[in-house]
Amino acid sequence: MAQGDKINFSNPSGFPEFLPSEKRLELYLLDIIRRVFESYGFTPIETPAVERLEVLQAKGNQGDNIIYGIEPILPPNRQAEKDKAGETGSEARALKFDQTVPLAAYIARHLNELTFPFARYQMDVVFRGERAKDGRFRQFRQCDIDVIARRELSLLYDAQMPAIITEIFEAVNIGDFLIRINNRKILTGFFKSVGIAANKIKSCIGIIDNLEKIGEAKVKQALAIEGIIPEQTQKIIDFISIDGSVDQVLDKLHHLAENLPEPDQLKLGVTELATVITGVRNLGVSEHRFTIDLSIARGLDYYTGTVYETTLLGHESLGSICSGGRYEELVGTFLGEKMPGVGISIGLTRLISRLLKAGIINTLSATPAQVMVVNMQADLMPIYLKVSQNLRRAGLNVITNFDKRPLGKQFQLADKQGIQFCVIVGAEEAAAEKSSLKDLNSGEQVEVALENLAEEIKKRLGNT
Amino acid sequence: MAQGDKINFSNPSGFPEFLPSEKRLELYLLDIIRRVFESYGFTPIETPAVERLEVLQAKGNQGDNIIYGIEPILPPNRQAEKDKAGETGSEARALKFDQTVPLAAYIARHLNELTFPFARYQMDVVFRGERAKDGRFRQFRQCDIDVIARRELSLLYDAQMPAIITEIFEAVNIGDFLIRINNRKILTGFFKSVGIAANKIKSCIGIIDNLEKIGEAKVKQALAIEGIIPEQTQKIIDFISIDGSVDQVLDKLHHLAENLPEPDQLKLGVTELATVITGVRNLGVSEHRFTIDLSIARGLDYYTGTVYETTLLGHESLGSICSGGRYEELVGTFLGEKMPGVGISIGLTRLISRLLKAGIINTLSATPAQVMVVNMQADLMPIYLKVSQNLRRAGLNVITNFDKRPLGKQFQLADKQGIQFCVIVGAEEAAAEKSSLKDLNSGEQVEVALENLAEEIKKRLGNT
Repeated sequence: MAQGDKINFSNPSGFPEFLPSEKRLELYLLDIIRRVFESYGFTPIETPAVERLEVLQAKGNQGDNIIYGIEPILPPNRQAEKDKAGETGSEARALKFDQTVPLAAYIARHLNELTFPFARYQMDVVFRGERAKDGRFRQFRQCDIDVIARRELSLLYDAQMPAIITEIFEAVNIGDFLIRINNRKILTGFFKSVGIAANKIKSCIGIIDNLEKIGEAKVKQALAIEGIIPEQTQKIIDFISIDGSVDQVLDKLHHLAENLPEPDQLKLGVTELATVITGVRNLGVSEHRFTIDLSIARGLDYYTGTVYETTLLGHESLGSICSGGRYEELVGTFLGEKMPGVGISIGLTRLISRLLKAGIINTLSATPAQVMVVNMQADLMPIYLKVSQNLRRAGLNVITNFDKRPLGKQFQLADKQGIQFCVIVGAEEAAAEKSSLKDLNSGEQVEVALENLAEEIKKRLGNT
Repeated sequence: MAQGDKINFSNPSGFPEFLPSEKRLELYLLDIIRRVFESYGFTPIETPAVERLEVLQAKGNQGDNIIYGIEPILPPNRQAEKDKAGETGSEARALKFDQTVPLAAYIARHLNELTFPFARYQMDVVFRGERAKDGRFRQFRQCDIDVIARRELSLLYDAQMPAIITEIFEAVNIGDFLIRINNRKILTGFFKSVGIAANKIKSCIGIIDNLEKIGEAKVKQALAIEGIIPEQTQKIIDFISIDGSVDQVLDKLHHLAENLPEPDQLKLGVTELATVITGVRNLGVSEHRFTIDLSIARGLDYYTGTVYETTLLGHESLGSICSGGRYEELVGTFLGEKMPGVGISIGLTRLISRLLKAGIINTLSATPAQVMVVNMQADLMPIYLKVSQNLRRAGLNVITNFDKRPLGKQFQLADKQGIQFCVIVGAEEAAAEKSSLKDLNSGEQVEVALENLAEEIKKRLGNT
């Protein structure tokens, strides 16, 4: 380690790490998300960080995702093992870049061990070799739920998703949000009805999906390039701009479906959407939490029915904070089976980073400790240890200060870490089985019998 | 996906994945471990899965650990970016193989943002390119705590470790265990006192550390090869075989320290050990949970003082289920500073695998859901959704069965997943605002008013 000072010990660009106050915030959010997921019966799984490369590339291509391959670096004296270990060629392995392809592989691997409909959650980290820029990470945690069926999947599973999104973000307390719901079949059906060729529908949907980002003029331009005539373009723009209350929009859609040619797909989409909306209402989601937005489509592929986006009101520029939808051909990939599914995803690492930057949430204190038992004199240490253990047994998180320092310095050390309470026991107090309890938030200091200490601290914690 | 069926979708050898019942067990254990860690004021951090290779190799060499390097696999149309992205050469990156080197780098990166003594926990997964064999994983989760100081670190931090180990394994309820405590200075001091050359002491400690694994005869042989004469070997064997109660062993050690030449190091070790033992007792750890075992040394390097191993009684062949110790020169690596630390580690993935195989613990049920609201008739679905939501709001995990099936099949579906309760609401019951509650464990079925349902289920859950 003579050259220790010459090593560049910075973390690799794009691979985030967490200070305690940040990691505590992440765990706080993960606990909330997990509690809500589990309350709807979603069960946890974990798939390996590493999959065979051919599995990760099984969806025909990897899209824009740059996959990280892994390759063992053997110590010089063990180079010979490399080939023996079969680490190359058909065994090539790489880090997962999302949780969808691994879910498909997982279901194929464990088909007979799982119960369907299979409702799972997963909160693993994934890896993408993106250029590290603002808000883009090469390693990030995604919180995903999906319900997968082997044949039919009730639309009520689609209806549960807005209820789950609502509960999570109400618990997180980040202000008003709006869940925007649409159905891809409504878009494809309408496009068909206004005479757009089947082979152009997907690209047209891709274009209108960018409306918010690029604006109406550029959407018109892009549709023109696709060969869409101005009259059709205007109909499309008018259609995706339909607004009003949920019931008004559903009425307009029903009316349109009755009056357009080739309405089957559109009608199916409207029926699905109406069923989902009824379910959302029956699940008790407040009317101001959701809306129908015919302009959202969620990218090009995958989704075949219901789609969701979630907007933080007043912070629209953050983009969707939770998105998802229904798909038919994603998860059965390795089985050659149609397995309908519906899911949502929270890109937690990016979300936290954006919410912190926008000042919408704050990090937590630097330690989970709520109490510091200070060190007044070394010979009382047995009492400090006993007091600390009693507080822990009562469910409190406690640091015993082992280092002898001036009392003021010990208060400072506690305060710096966000520890609210200091427990002070000097010789006199010890003899009388008492303590002084100092609340660093208020500055107040009160005398408390040792036997009542835990109760007193918990009462005061409950009040703040 | 035409060739979907030709893809080998098995998970790569050595990279474990979890079925729901296994992942739920892991989360259950992680929750316990986290609660105990936090009760002692340990705060969570996360370091990236990926570090610069030079950081991972900074401890002179990587030992026996095969490190996995990562390398971006670009889509064919983006090969040109590879060089631009600076992904090679001095920027070479790899997956972390333990949490110690990354902790050292983390502290160097955030020195001025952390408060010392810095008590952190970390429960990340790490990666090693080991040959996958029984009980060896290439990806596994480690639960580590360490306290790091910038100068002095009180021995009471060492004393807290057995208290923490005790609380965790008592909560997990895996049977009787014994924490074996030693101090490396006692070993090095004794070796010095019996005349073993300073440059041979480390290798001799390495040899006696294997006593349990290879037996006394082979230890003697190995010591002879090191040039240790039979008389010294016998003294060493007698020494590390010293047994008796904690106080008896401490007495013997005090006595030896008074009667051997060059006793300074030995005396220091004995004093440290006695201080730690006093602290462990003051922390209220039961006498039957810990012992002094002079034969444990924890490998060759790192540790300079207190060392711990934890044995599951009756299952000694499992090896240590929680180990650790004190070190002086590990964490200051990148700063060129001495930063004393003490820590313990639970190799959770391996531990779970071994405990399951030995039948010491069982997996949990396949779902967190405790209740299934069954589907009696489609037109009552609004009621099923409302009942489900009320139960969720009361803190229960609930699956609503959306699929219409015979009642017996629905009970089967619940039972298969380990869901204890089914809630049955038919037309008559709905009209009377009642339900039938079926306990699948007992077979019992009782009538419960809907408004009392959550309370009744929680009461019954509390009783099982």
